[in-house]
Amino acid sequence: MSKFIHDDFMLQSQAAKDLYHHFAKDEPILDFHNHLPPDEIAADRSFETLYDIWLAGDHYKWRGMRANGIPENRITGDASPRDKFDAWAETVPHTLRNALYHWTHLELSRYFGFEGLFSPETADEVWESGNAKLSQPEYSCRGLLEMSQVRALCTTDDPIHSLEHHQTIADDDSIDCRVYPTFRPDAALWVNDAEHFNNYADTLSEVSGVDCGTFSGFCDALRARHDFFHSLGGRLSDHGLHHIFDAECSDEKAAAIFEKVRSGTAADEAETEAFGAWMMLLFGELNHSRGWTMQLHIGAERNNNQKLFENLGRDVGCDSMADVDHAGAVRRYLNTLSHRGHLPKVMLYNLNPKDNYALATMLGNFNEAVPGDPPCRLQLGTAWWFLDTKEGMEWQINTFSNTSLLSRFNGMLTDSRSFLSFTRHEYFRRILCNVIGTDIENGEIPRDMEMVGDMVRRICFQNAADFFGLELP
Amino acid sequence: MSKFIHDDFMLQSQAAKDLYHHFAKDEPILDFHNHLPPDEIAADRSFETLYDIWLAGDHYKWRGMRANGIPENRITGDASPRDKFDAWAETVPHTLRNALYHWTHLELSRYFGFEGLFSPETADEVWESGNAKLSQPEYSCRGLLEMSQVRALCTTDDPIHSLEHHQTIADDDSIDCRVYPTFRPDAALWVNDAEHFNNYADTLSEVSGVDCGTFSGFCDALRARHDFFHSLGGRLSDHGLHHIFDAECSDEKAAAIFEKVRSGTAADEAETEAFGAWMMLLFGELNHSRGWTMQLHIGAERNNNQKLFENLGRDVGCDSMADVDHAGAVRRYLNTLSHRGHLPKVMLYNLNPKDNYALATMLGNFNEAVPGDPPCRLQLGTAWWFLDTKEGMEWQINTFSNTSLLSRFNGMLTDSRSFLSFTRHEYFRRILCNVIGTDIENGEIPRDMEMVGDMVRRICFQNAADFFGLELP
Amino acid sequence: MSKFIHDDFMLQSQAAKDLYHHFAKDEPILDFHNHLPPDEIAADRSFETLYDIWLAGDHYKWRGMRANGIPENRITGDASPRDKFDAWAETVPHTLRNALYHWTHLELSRYFGFEGLFSPETADEVWESGNAKLSQPEYSCRGLLEMSQVRALCTTDDPIHSLEHHQTIADDDSIDCRVYPTFRPDAALWVNDAEHFNNYADTLSEVSGVDCGTFSGFCDALRARHDFFHSLGGRLSDHGLHHIFDAECSDEKAAAIFEKVRSGTAADEAETEAFGAWMMLLFGELNHSRGWTMQLHIGAERNNNQKLFENLGRDVGCDSMADVDHAGAVRRYLNTLSHRGHLPKVMLYNLNPKDNYALATMLGNFNEAVPGDPPCRLQLGTAWWFLDTKEGMEWQINTFSNTSLLSRFNGMLTDSRSFLSFTRHEYFRRILCNVIGTDIENGEIPRDMEMVGDMVRRICFQNAADFFGLELP
Repeated sequence: MSKFIHDDFMLQSQAAKDLYHHFAKDEPILDFHNHLPPDEIAADRSFETLYDIWLAGDHYKWRGMRANGIPENRITGDASPRDKFDAWAETVPHTLRNALYHWTHLELSRYFGFEGLFSPETADEVWESGNAKLSQPEYSCRGLLEMSQVRALCTTDDPIHSLEHHQTIADDDSIDCRVYPTFRPDAALWVNDAEHFNNYADTLSEVSGVDCGTFSGFCDALRARHDFFHSLGGRLSDHGLHHIFDAECSDEKAAAIFEKVRSGTAADEAETEAFGAWMMLLFGELNHSRGWTMQLHIGAERNNNQKLFENLGRDVGCDSMADVDHAGAVRRYLNTLSHRGHLPKVMLYNLNPKDNYALATMLGNFNEAVPGDPPCRLQLGTAWWFLDTKEGMEWQINTFSNTSLLSRFNGMLTDSRSFLSFTRHEYFRRILCNVIGTDIENGEIPRDMEMVGDMVRRICFQNAADFFGLELP
Repeated sequence: MSKFIHDDFMLQSQAAKDLYHHFAKDEPILDFHNHLPPDEIAADRSFETLYDIWLAGDHYKWRGMRANGIPENRITGDASPRDKFDAWAETVPHTLRNALYHWTHLELSRYFGFEGLFSPETADEVWESGNAKLSQPEYSCRGLLEMSQVRALCTTDDPIHSLEHHQTIADDDSIDCRVYPTFRPDAALWVNDAEHFNNYADTLSEVSGVDCGTFSGFCDALRARHDFFHSLGGRLSDHGLHHIFDAECSDEKAAAIFEKVRSGTAADEAETEAFGAWMMLLFGELNHSRGWTMQLHIGAERNNNQKLFENLGRDVGCDSMADVDHAGAVRRYLNTLSHRGHLPKVMLYNLNPKDNYALATMLGNFNEAVPGDPPCRLQLGTAWWFLDTKEGMEWQINTFSNTSLLSRFNGMLTDSRSFLSFTRHEYFRRILCNVIGTDIENGEIPRDMEMVGDMVRRICFQNAADFFGLELP
Repeated sequence: MSKFIHDDFMLQSQAAKDLYHHFAKDEPILDFHNHLPPDEIAADRSFETLYDIWLAGDHYKWRGMRANGIPENRITGDASPRDKFDAWAETVPHTLRNALYHWTHLELSRYFGFEGLFSPETADEVWESGNAKLSQPEYSCRGLLEMSQVRALCTTDDPIHSLEHHQTIADDDSIDCRVYPTFRPDAALWVNDAEHFNNYADTLSEVSGVDCGTFSGFCDALRARHDFFHSLGGRLSDHGLHHIFDAECSDEKAAAIFEKVRSGTAADEAETEAFGAWMMLLFGELNHSRGWTMQLHIGAERNNNQKLFENLGRDVGCDSMADVDHAGAVRRYLNTLSHRGHLPKVMLYNLNPKDNYALATMLGNFNEAVPGDPPCRLQLGTAWWFLDTKEGMEWQINTFSNTSLLSRFNGMLTDSRSFLSFTRHEYFRRILCNVIGTDIENGEIPRDMEMVGDMVRRICFQNAADFFGLELP
């Protein structure tokens, strides 16, 4: 049996192989959205074991292990790192046809040189050799970024964060990769929890030096933080929303809700919706004024398993797809921004595949050119989360192709918490080249490898480099 | 022209052929959900003509014939059996690309040895030779079960059924196949029809010997029937619901609704929803307490054609897919059961393909291990009804693969009223092997035929045998 | 590099090639729904430049150009025709994988003999040779219809249109192609705009000679126009609806709403819904009484970009897919018509692909035979607008196949404003043959080329010819 992860993995035609090897493989990475910890990059953390770098924070794997009947103790409980690693090894052979199988073997191959099939039979070998590698200096956070050819990455940061680690990294000449913050102000919308919101506003006052006792102060403080993120090179915001807030809300009403919550009373559901709608228009305006791109992640239903939420908290593998109708709300949101002259560049990431087409066509309604801006200002972002699979990526690529101009697509990002996830760019590129290569073989696009290859190359890196305006080394 | 239904039908690669012939073909059948009539098995009914066994109760075929412009008289009316058979023969050549074409030829090939194409030209031959075969003793109900290698099957039964035929079958040493009842208490929710409900409750009193004059009596009677089904080997319930009931309902409120209806006044829409929600939690509890599996069939919009409903009644080919949003209701239902410690094993069957992903990911939120239970306690069940096609099965297999662990899937069931439908297991197995074989050929899963073949084999039979805890011969 | 648009374009198997070349290619065209201007056919307009015939009215291209960052001035503004043509040439290489790339090259190949790839490099050549061809007499409207082998076409016309051009065409023996009007009374539903509605009703009075001062007069006037359309050979109505109106509305209520609006007060949202529901039942009745077919185009969300709507008006490339739930409303509408004995033949076109299956199965509930009518009276129409792509057509063909009888499908229409769009019939036929040919190669349908080819041939032309009852030359 030949190697599972071989040179032509996922490339099912000669055209796909040519595209991948000549146009995609060597492009650098601009990972414009992820959840990597800036402190670990600043400190150039090293990892003791495969458990630490590979399992400790990965709720995708936890979810797979649960489905395989692994007791919670061996997933998130007090079992030993090795025992949890073994639980994962028991699970992997059962993940055939799930992207976890591909990711696992790509990561083991690319970072650790393991070319076999991961299972209880090979767990010892992988554990020993992997941990030995991790003890080498090139397996630190920064080493892994270099190994992965990451030119720049954007972490995800709350406006109240000090961004001290981003500053440390920026001041450190020894790191080639640029690390930029992304402005993610979701907590500024959560007026349905008065205590949490007030703590948040108080912290924002401190961090920004702008008093958040009044609504205008609160907005000014956020604006100041947006400026500060900009000064550190940030050019993107991000918003994780169940749906696009959809309510009329005057300035007065927004201020009144703010004051009510600041005085200790939580906003009700309608007020929370209205306040969110108002704030999202503000964030749109901030982004537009600075030439930023607004990222909208919509359609997740979170923390569904109350028992595990109470035991383990958020982001533990108990989130799933919402099924709501988005088109009307997105229309109203974009129209209002457009009417006000505040419509920024937008990347919208959709979670429930049934909504791909409606959302992509809605974005296309607002795609008129803006002088100085790149083409295709509003894009359906790459396949996200549960869709970060061959099937999901193909759907997103096809939706984008059929409803917009694939040639202008900004391509892949990892959205990951792990320093080993950059192989997902490889995964995406292979799938992209395979899709396009199939079209060439079928005569659906011309066998003009320079024209088609140039499109592939740009989707891998250059489109994003041109689009976001991030300073690159 | 070679035979249409040949050894490698639907198997498009060598890997697919190897998987099917070495791992899938010879597995026995555990048909854990169907609508076969237990009285006919008990009596070992024989069939006079192909009409009786093939057309008389098959609303899939009726629907196809209507679309072909066949007058109702030749479908459900007083035309002769042979005339109706001829109407079907006229229709079949027009069913190309519909699963009916495949099912028809699979059934004619496997049970009657007819290897041609069914049409008016071959109708005589099929009618004569088929009827001749049906007169042989091995074409009785039990003969057909044996011919199909059915180890066990689960019929679908109301709690008020006496289960006398199941007892007859269980007491009869001459039948190898086990026939278990499934607890399907849908009628216990229909408080919107006072007369029907009261008749139902009265019958339940009689059958159970528990007085259903009070709500607690009604619940006790259902519990007693659940126990009785258990004593006859039943290990599954089944629930056919437009959507998962989604309402708060206290014990007191449920009791009040019950009393109102028992006193002769139908429940209104909100009360019907609330009562249904309460009862479904009870059924969850009953199932959990006995280690049963709860089957949820959701998303059908039934009896849409009022005219045909009035003329012909239910289940006549006038049902279709609902388009509702399920995620929130399913979340609340599973969470409540989980919170109470009553969450049983679940097989959820979805009818509208747009909902596959949202539902599959929602189930995955609740998949934590339970000691003594099998892995993957909550599963998206196999493609159902209108989706029981190559396209629908591939969607379900892909959704399951991408969102859960296909290796743990319980596989196929017929959901059929016909003793000739067991060929759908063959159909499913061919499609499953074809999908997986394609992955092997494409290098997306390793060419490790023992590992992959073992997965196939388990999906065909053993997973279900392990999961449901049904006693098998 | 071989020609991009070659004889076997899109045909990926020998069976596909055989089906296309022997059964599909030479069938004539019955384009039973489009938006061609009857005045231009009557006057046999010629076109000066490629801009006039190809870009001037094509909002599909405008949308693509916007996504490519072309300034509005070069799309719909005052740039020169050649400059706009160049803007399109700049855009086309970026439309790879979008249907625009295929349509563009099909049209340039079939009508202008250009076999290269369209781009800024070839723009001069295409412009010069294309304009030269357009100056030849056979490139007039009628010439293009002949070149395209169009036997008959149905334009889309408001009941208040005089249909003078249809009469001119009908009276002109020199034109072989029949040109029929389609009754599209959408404006008769817009009671939410009193001024517009009253102008409309007044015009209707004039055109019909029936006084629309009363509601019964208004209905009689519409009936008279329906008769008039019938007298000119029209056999279809068409209705462009966001959703199927879904409200109870008595005759009295409808009349009261009518009178309110006629007296100058706009109907509110609920009244508009109710009035629309009543009127759609009337149109169903009119269609049924005359043996017409009712076309329902549902699921578009229109004029989403308020800024471009104010600047440019309707149909400028700012429409997209609605995401609403249709099944219940469609059920109630069809049931009411069926109950009243007024259910006409129906072609329902769906825009959001998530709804394909629910709608197709709902239509199938009402498919019982009617003496004298063709089979499959209610059909899911061909892939529409954003779905008029390879992916969208395959989805529609598969949905139709799996839920109904593809053999009875009425096939393709252009829905276009352009005399160059008839190549979309070729596009559809190639995709249809490719899908079916793949099935033959995979053994999923028998390699009986006469049987399968006959199905293909009928879908290309004869089914529609039989279904609609249009008089053909």
